[in-house]
Amino acid sequence: MWVQRDITLRPRPRGFHLVTGEVLEALPELGDLRVGLAHLFIRHTSASLSLSENASPDVRRDFETWFDVAVPEDAPYWTHTTEGPDDMPAHIKAALLGPSLSLPVSAGRLALGIWQGIYLCEHRDDGGARRLVATLWGEAG
Amino acid sequence: MWVQRDITLRPRPRGFHLVTGEVLEALPELGDLRVGLAHLFIRHTSASLSLSENASPDVRRDFETWFDVAVPEDAPYWTHTTEGPDDMPAHIKAALLGPSLSLPVSAGRLALGIWQGIYLCEHRDDGGARRLVATLWGEAG
Amino acid sequence: MWVQRDITLRPRPRGFHLVTGEVLEALPELGDLRVGLAHLFIRHTSASLSLSENASPDVRRDFETWFDVAVPEDAPYWTHTTEGPDDMPAHIKAALLGPSLSLPVSAGRLALGIWQGIYLCEHRDDGGARRLVATLWGEAG
Repeated sequence: MWVQRDITLRPRPRGFHLVTGEVLEALPELGDLRVGLAHLFIRHTSASLSLSENASPDVRRDFETWFDVAVPEDAPYWTHTTEGPDDMPAHIKAALLGPSLSLPVSAGRLALGIWQGIYLCEHRDDGGARRLVATLWGEAG
Repeated sequence: MWVQRDITLRPRPRGFHLVTGEVLEALPELGDLRVGLAHLFIRHTSASLSLSENASPDVRRDFETWFDVAVPEDAPYWTHTTEGPDDMPAHIKAALLGPSLSLPVSAGRLALGIWQGIYLCEHRDDGGARRLVATLWGEAG
Repeated sequence: MWVQRDITLRPRPRGFHLVTGEVLEALPELGDLRVGLAHLFIRHTSASLSLSENASPDVRRDFETWFDVAVPEDAPYWTHTTEGPDDMPAHIKAALLGPSLSLPVSAGRLALGIWQGIYLCEHRDDGGARRLVATLWGEAG
């Protein structure tokens, strides 16, 4: 069983956003998988996907702070500056976190830990809508 | 052919730990795969999985040092501090390294390079036992 | 349908290199997949694979600069120094970026965004040729 679908996430401000519910709603066939994988892929180089704590908004705020300190916009060494000061740092942040998540599916559900949620990591000031490709495969239940 | 299994890794101290042998022992069906994939997923947001040098303990020690410097516990900007000073840095470290490994399987073995070993990256002082979901799929040999 | 193949990438200087074309040329069967996944895996611990901007060489130069600043060779805390000053930083950089890419395949093509290209990230001064294992699976079209 294979399912592949484009998902468009509405524009969000720069920062880390919990999108687990939105992604699951777009993938009703997940409930038919007895065992399998769900692969989420973002088709951009300045936004990324990650998995982290799904309860406290201050965790997501601290993610933004740490990444902004670690990959500073005003560093003197950037040479790719024509697309704005947030562009090159966004590419680095996106590469550190990665463009995809591969998640196990068990008995019709993502086999996540209870604290794990899917983050859309928006690294640009005005990133706009973000397009994902979701792919499910495995054995139907 | 699909195999999915929970694996519990015993509690380990904060740091980077080589667990290749322990993981392989839990997956005897890997030997039946002619070609396929092995997916290892950790169900936590303050520990992670990585692949790195499998020989020198000083490499794993230097990993711990670098991550502690890069994501400092005593930074003034953390706001999520209620779960202890090691908690928020652990979430960042875990996101940088990621919650999963996807490894090719060839002729009944992981097709790793000779220096590659599976690391359990324990980012908390007292993380306790860590639960993995291992999923194998592919063509039987 | 499963295809698995070793790909050897010729030696490249330290830095970030666009290898999308080279990888695709080695995988003609990708055109036969209606829906599936392509998994690229590097069998080394001091080089990595990433996905980022495929147009501007200055982006790739800035990647090298940022990683060199973030993981400095001359840091006083390294203990694993017997293989040269570029070795231990290479392990850290490789772990941050990761050893594999999982890419969706749709209608015989990688379903990448228009700006996404495959990077070989060479973290050593003289890394030599780098070996990949490429695995394709899915439904034939």
